Amino acid sequence: MAQKMRGVTLHATWAPKPGFKLGAKDIDHVQTYLGSQVWKDPYLTIDEYDIPEPGPGEVLIKVKACGICGSDVHMAQSHDDGYIFYPGLTGFPCILGHELSGTVVKCGPGAKDKTTNKAFVGGELVCAEEMLWCGSCKPCADGWPNHCERLDEIGFNVNGAFCEYIVLPDRCLWSLEPLRHMYTNEEDIFLAGSLVEPCSVGYNAVIERGGGVRPGDNVVICGTGPVGLAACRELKRMGGATVIVSEPQPERAALAKKMGADYVIDPTKVDFTEEVLRLTDSMGASLYLEATGLPTVVYPGIEQCIWEGRTLNATVVVVARAEAKIPVTGEVLQVRRARIVGAQGHSGHGTFPRVISSMASGMDMLPMITKKTKLDEVPENIIALQKDRKNMKITCLMD
Amino acid sequence: MAQKMRGVTLHATWAPKPGFKLGAKDIDHVQTYLGSQVWKDPYLTIDEYDIPEPGPGEVLIKVKACGICGSDVHMAQSHDDGYIFYPGLTGFPCILGHELSGTVVKCGPGAKDKTTNKAFVGGELVCAEEMLWCGSCKPCADGWPNHCERLDEIGFNVNGAFCEYIVLPDRCLWSLEPLRHMYTNEEDIFLAGSLVEPCSVGYNAVIERGGGVRPGDNVVICGTGPVGLAACRELKRMGGATVIVSEPQPERAALAKKMGADYVIDPTKVDFTEEVLRLTDSMGASLYLEATGLPTVVYPGIEQCIWEGRTLNATVVVVARAEAKIPVTGEVLQVRRARIVGAQGHSGHGTFPRVISSMASGMDMLPMITKKTKLDEVPENIIALQKDRKNMKITCLMD
Amino acid sequence: MAQKMRGVTLHATWAPKPGFKLGAKDIDHVQTYLGSQVWKDPYLTIDEYDIPEPGPGEVLIKVKACGICGSDVHMAQSHDDGYIFYPGLTGFPCILGHELSGTVVKCGPGAKDKTTNKAFVGGELVCAEEMLWCGSCKPCADGWPNHCERLDEIGFNVNGAFCEYIVLPDRCLWSLEPLRHMYTNEEDIFLAGSLVEPCSVGYNAVIERGGGVRPGDNVVICGTGPVGLAACRELKRMGGATVIVSEPQPERAALAKKMGADYVIDPTKVDFTEEVLRLTDSMGASLYLEATGLPTVVYPGIEQCIWEGRTLNATVVVVARAEAKIPVTGEVLQVRRARIVGAQGHSGHGTFPRVISSMASGMDMLPMITKKTKLDEVPENIIALQKDRKNMKITCLMD
Amino acid sequence: MAQKMRGVTLHATWAPKPGFKLGAKDIDHVQTYLGSQVWKDPYLTIDEYDIPEPGPGEVLIKVKACGICGSDVHMAQSHDDGYIFYPGLTGFPCILGHELSGTVVKCGPGAKDKTTNKAFVGGELVCAEEMLWCGSCKPCADGWPNHCERLDEIGFNVNGAFCEYIVLPDRCLWSLEPLRHMYTNEEDIFLAGSLVEPCSVGYNAVIERGGGVRPGDNVVICGTGPVGLAACRELKRMGGATVIVSEPQPERAALAKKMGADYVIDPTKVDFTEEVLRLTDSMGASLYLEATGLPTVVYPGIEQCIWEGRTLNATVVVVARAEAKIPVTGEVLQVRRARIVGAQGHSGHGTFPRVISSMASGMDMLPMITKKTKLDEVPENIIALQKDRKNMKITCLMD
Repeated sequence: MAQKMRGVTLHATWAPKPGFKLGAKDIDHVQTYLGSQVWKDPYLTIDEYDIPEPGPGEVLIKVKACGICGSDVHMAQSHDDGYIFYPGLTGFPCILGHELSGTVVKCGPGAKDKTTNKAFVGGELVCAEEMLWCGSCKPCADGWPNHCERLDEIGFNVNGAFCEYIVLPDRCLWSLEPLRHMYTNEEDIFLAGSLVEPCSVGYNAVIERGGGVRPGDNVVICGTGPVGLAACRELKRMGGATVIVSEPQPERAALAKKMGADYVIDPTKVDFTEEVLRLTDSMGASLYLEATGLPTVVYPGIEQCIWEGRTLNATVVVVARAEAKIPVTGEVLQVRRARIVGAQGHSGHGTFPRVISSMASGMDMLPMITKKTKLDEVPENIIALQKDRKNMKITCLMD
Repeated sequence: MAQKMRGVTLHATWAPKPGFKLGAKDIDHVQTYLGSQVWKDPYLTIDEYDIPEPGPGEVLIKVKACGICGSDVHMAQSHDDGYIFYPGLTGFPCILGHELSGTVVKCGPGAKDKTTNKAFVGGELVCAEEMLWCGSCKPCADGWPNHCERLDEIGFNVNGAFCEYIVLPDRCLWSLEPLRHMYTNEEDIFLAGSLVEPCSVGYNAVIERGGGVRPGDNVVICGTGPVGLAACRELKRMGGATVIVSEPQPERAALAKKMGADYVIDPTKVDFTEEVLRLTDSMGASLYLEATGLPTVVYPGIEQCIWEGRTLNATVVVVARAEAKIPVTGEVLQVRRARIVGAQGHSGHGTFPRVISSMASGMDMLPMITKKTKLDEVPENIIALQKDRKNMKITCLMD
Repeated sequence: MAQKMRGVTLHATWAPKPGFKLGAKDIDHVQTYLGSQVWKDPYLTIDEYDIPEPGPGEVLIKVKACGICGSDVHMAQSHDDGYIFYPGLTGFPCILGHELSGTVVKCGPGAKDKTTNKAFVGGELVCAEEMLWCGSCKPCADGWPNHCERLDEIGFNVNGAFCEYIVLPDRCLWSLEPLRHMYTNEEDIFLAGSLVEPCSVGYNAVIERGGGVRPGDNVVICGTGPVGLAACRELKRMGGATVIVSEPQPERAALAKKMGADYVIDPTKVDFTEEVLRLTDSMGASLYLEATGLPTVVYPGIEQCIWEGRTLNATVVVVARAEAKIPVTGEVLQVRRARIVGAQGHSGHGTFPRVISSMASGMDMLPMITKKTKLDEVPENIIALQKDRKNMKITCLMD
Repeated sequence: MAQKMRGVTLHATWAPKPGFKLGAKDIDHVQTYLGSQVWKDPYLTIDEYDIPEPGPGEVLIKVKACGICGSDVHMAQSHDDGYIFYPGLTGFPCILGHELSGTVVKCGPGAKDKTTNKAFVGGELVCAEEMLWCGSCKPCADGWPNHCERLDEIGFNVNGAFCEYIVLPDRCLWSLEPLRHMYTNEEDIFLAGSLVEPCSVGYNAVIERGGGVRPGDNVVICGTGPVGLAACRELKRMGGATVIVSEPQPERAALAKKMGADYVIDPTKVDFTEEVLRLTDSMGASLYLEATGLPTVVYPGIEQCIWEGRTLNATVVVVARAEAKIPVTGEVLQVRRARIVGAQGHSGHGTFPRVISSMASGMDMLPMITKKTKLDEVPENIIALQKDRKNMKITCLMD
């Protein structure tokens, strides 16, 4: 008889809005790429599940830590009409949780540890990508797994990690063993390990997509969610000279300072462009990150910094999703030799192992975790985060 | 007594609009970076000048051919209120003409031929950059001469080449001797040589700034001015698989075919996005050039091609100037891993010599010249081009 | 009862040389990464096999064309001591043949066509990568499938395509449907399709690894095996201005001209460096390909061209395998800002689809096939190629 | 009457070795690009000079600090046959000294401060490039000033900075004003400023030419001269995870630790490759710097690390000059996707301003200066450094 475990489960009702049609990748009553157009009346429960068994190429992991992400909040949050906030790939009911770390319990046929190229022996410390890229479609074959055409996502359309055990394909696992160089107790390793995924989203945005910086370049980060903060820390680590974060909220501003920001400016109190130019000796920055989701508010200021600053070749990375159009003045891109790039995902390009290696050699991201919780308390914390802007990251530690 | 020569001269009245202030680089009654805000009532004459003498590092050139550019037309064209169309760096009176080729007559102290690293002996065939980058300011020292902070421009604020002789700094001259491999008579060499500058604007836009293509990639060009056509020819030469040009005007469409376009579509008659996707087996393109100056009209279609096509990593190059904001959907850049870059200029990065080398090895751009004229007829042709959209390039051949 | 087919099979005896130890990836009496250290007394037969069945993610293909590669020759060729020439991954007995094209017969569970992201319906024209990269190891996860740590190779350690049917994973198949734009009969499509693999080795070497050229750059190719010829054609297509091939053999020299070489020089008759500099107006080249396997013979001349030519930023791509050390003068790399890169493989990076797209839009590689043969004659042709240097590519056409 | 100043002058006798011919850029009895083939019996004096006057585009600087470089030592050092060690561009007699900082006294016509794009007012803190690139030759026009074909070098063939005043072209000066953010007293600013040149050589080598690292990558530095140490500090600042320096000498090893090395290994006591693999969890490094000048000793170990480590895409940067050939195994570059690049110079590419900006934001290089001296003592210190390997950098502070 299979052993049992508990899992934080999101339920919702399949109720497509008028005019909705099943897309190529949608499955009726099962999953859709347009969550907010389909799912209604979400609620969370803690349910009992069989502990899953690893199949070929798969690994069974005992979960040790798992962070709550904004998308968890938005899946469980609904508008007045009952439809959920979260717009993307979703299939309910589903165990939530995708920022996970844990230890390997056993592996299925052919599953191997990427680090050793041998089968797992059990007991290895690992974390996982949230994106289960297929490795076979055209984008995957060409080297762009963040744009996989057959994507599954842990905790969105396949069961996630707010539970005691999870089975995952070996190709999406990364060893946390290097963190033993950095942390002396395993709890810290698991907490740091649960941050690898959001830190990889930031790394992918500003370093893989944005091209990073050369030591001595300046940086401006707009927005201090986990992705903005991770990017701040990573670009400071890459040699950012003057790293400026724009954030009005005092707790987040203070945290940004801990995460490497040289200056935090409050754009509601000072003129954003003037302040950036003042702090950079009139140079402006080489890399700007839009991580607010408010491009109509933020982009004009970024553009003005590029126009008035003397830095050429600036890159604007747009990582936050937004429906509004970005109002782009072509002449600014022309006169300053600038560019705009979009970023999504965290997979491929050596990003996960480099984030882990950076953490192992001193990039401490633990201050991002502002609260720890238990599995039983995950649902209430997901709900509380609908209003709480003071906590940066609430992370569930398993027993 | 100095010898005399004739030059096509633009005159205008210094009459700054209300509120205009001299900028950092402006000189009262002499030159401004905001031409259309200052200069009124333009007119063209053919005046007599002393033949200039080359100073240190300078070279005296006998002009052989010089093309009429759209900016020549816009300097001589005025709105109803009398102010000129052209918005940029200008200082009048000024001999117009910047798309030039000619032969070296003599050189001043220290002037050298870049090709041989020795003094010119006289008789060398050369063309010239239009941008007299200084070589000393921060952008020049860092390697970005297209963004020189002390720029002079031939035929805009210093005397140009619609005349018999011109003196230019050696660093902005490039040998046309390689074109002897391609053309058997010198007139063709000089005509081709006068096209190097506009072709370099296209090359800088799509290859230096846009990153070019890999053989097998698809291309979409919006706009068939000389820059769009040059880019079309250059990207086809770089291995563009399906090169599509969007242009409603029949003469220009026919010329685009001669310049390497596989297909020309008329966006007033077919759905731009549907047609691009149809012609590319639903892939869309890797590189899109916006060379129309109408981004609000053109960009939504480009964006739709990127969104619906399956090509990742597309680049949109914006080379045409426009006041209107480009309405950019960030999610398209994110989901398709795309980017937007601005492009200006033609200097540096090995662009001029590569354009010449391409021409020397078979890239025939002469079909772009649809009419040849004489120095005396240049003014009337500049005026005629205010309305004529059938001629692509009218080029003055000197006696 | 399973249907039967015939296959050209290589047999050899497992007889490790003294001192040989099984490596991490070797399997006793089955396969080794050091073929020439282990396998003895090779011989070819045509044997009868069951037609294989596609498993999950796999596709059954009816083979239509398959080229003989130099490595096929070297697996069947032995030194005086009986050991085979070929030094790499091998597991015998094995059906040879890896340069294949064919039509899809049926697909196993979950197998999809990368072009449509749907299951194959049967009848699709396809070709295949030779490298069965795993998609799961660290190099694959990071985007470097050419360096897969769990590689299988078609026709080396898993059964190949000198037979009537083959089963392959969907992720390594590429549609040849675009070639219908180029060729009117299917035989030409299958012949061209069988060339995609060797042309991709060249493309990976000079374009993915070497960075390609910008239009107007010069190129020097040393060696005219299929990889050298493919690279020649591809770099000419990318805008190479003066493309020089170095090759003493007259038939190969003539073929190089057909494949885009502007000049072919015979280094046994003229001074290689002098000739390259003469043909390039003393500039030398931007990209040099070492595809001879004789670096001690070839590299000094390449280095001398870089040193004496005026081209900066040259890249030397080393694609041919050789045991001898390359004698590199560091100062040449320093003074000319040059670099050396190694290249192997053909997978990933969009290489296969770009080669196909290039072929579909005019890059005709068929002249490389100098002889066509039948399955029954493959063994004797493999043997004949031990001495025949006049045939470039002998290709088997299936009935 | 012109004011006078003292300058440390190198004298030597023009005595070309048999067979020497004047090269294209050599001037009989004045200067040569092959110093060690021509100059004999060097000696140092302190002579009196007129204080120079700045011409057009030039600036008069009061020297405040100037470091002694290894090339100063090698110009003053001779073999048993009397010929000097230094092999490069030299013209004697010449005031030595090229690692300088100082304050602007006045500027000649047209000379401007790159930072403000206005004339210097006097009193500005500046440092200077050693390479007086011309800004006009083909390499300069194309953006490669480190490969200028008309180069002059401060303190080699034009008078240097071991004196009280120097005149330099404005384009080679960089403001040290940002260092006021970092150091509270001007002496420290001038000392740091005198290190910008050697630190820029390191930066150009590993970041501009080597491509730097991404945070989390490992680094191996062979050689701890100023360039190796600067590169160590800069790559650690760029996010190098495990930075290993190879150096047997204890004082230099200790200094390497101060400059950011995580580990220093003594290759005379441990196996270089084994130790690198042990310290990097069997991964090896992404970037290797050869800064010893002993490639036959060092390269085989580097190559072995690349071969046995699991890191793909490693870059070997060769910055030290050496006559010996580097014995390169092509297969290592192929199997590990690695490359070798040569590096020289420090100009262009935004390198100087980024080094200054890095210093201004916390990259303290002052520990490299192990001894300070006065102008009068410069000659004896230059001589002493022929044998002294304990001092890293001896820097002259002016009164």
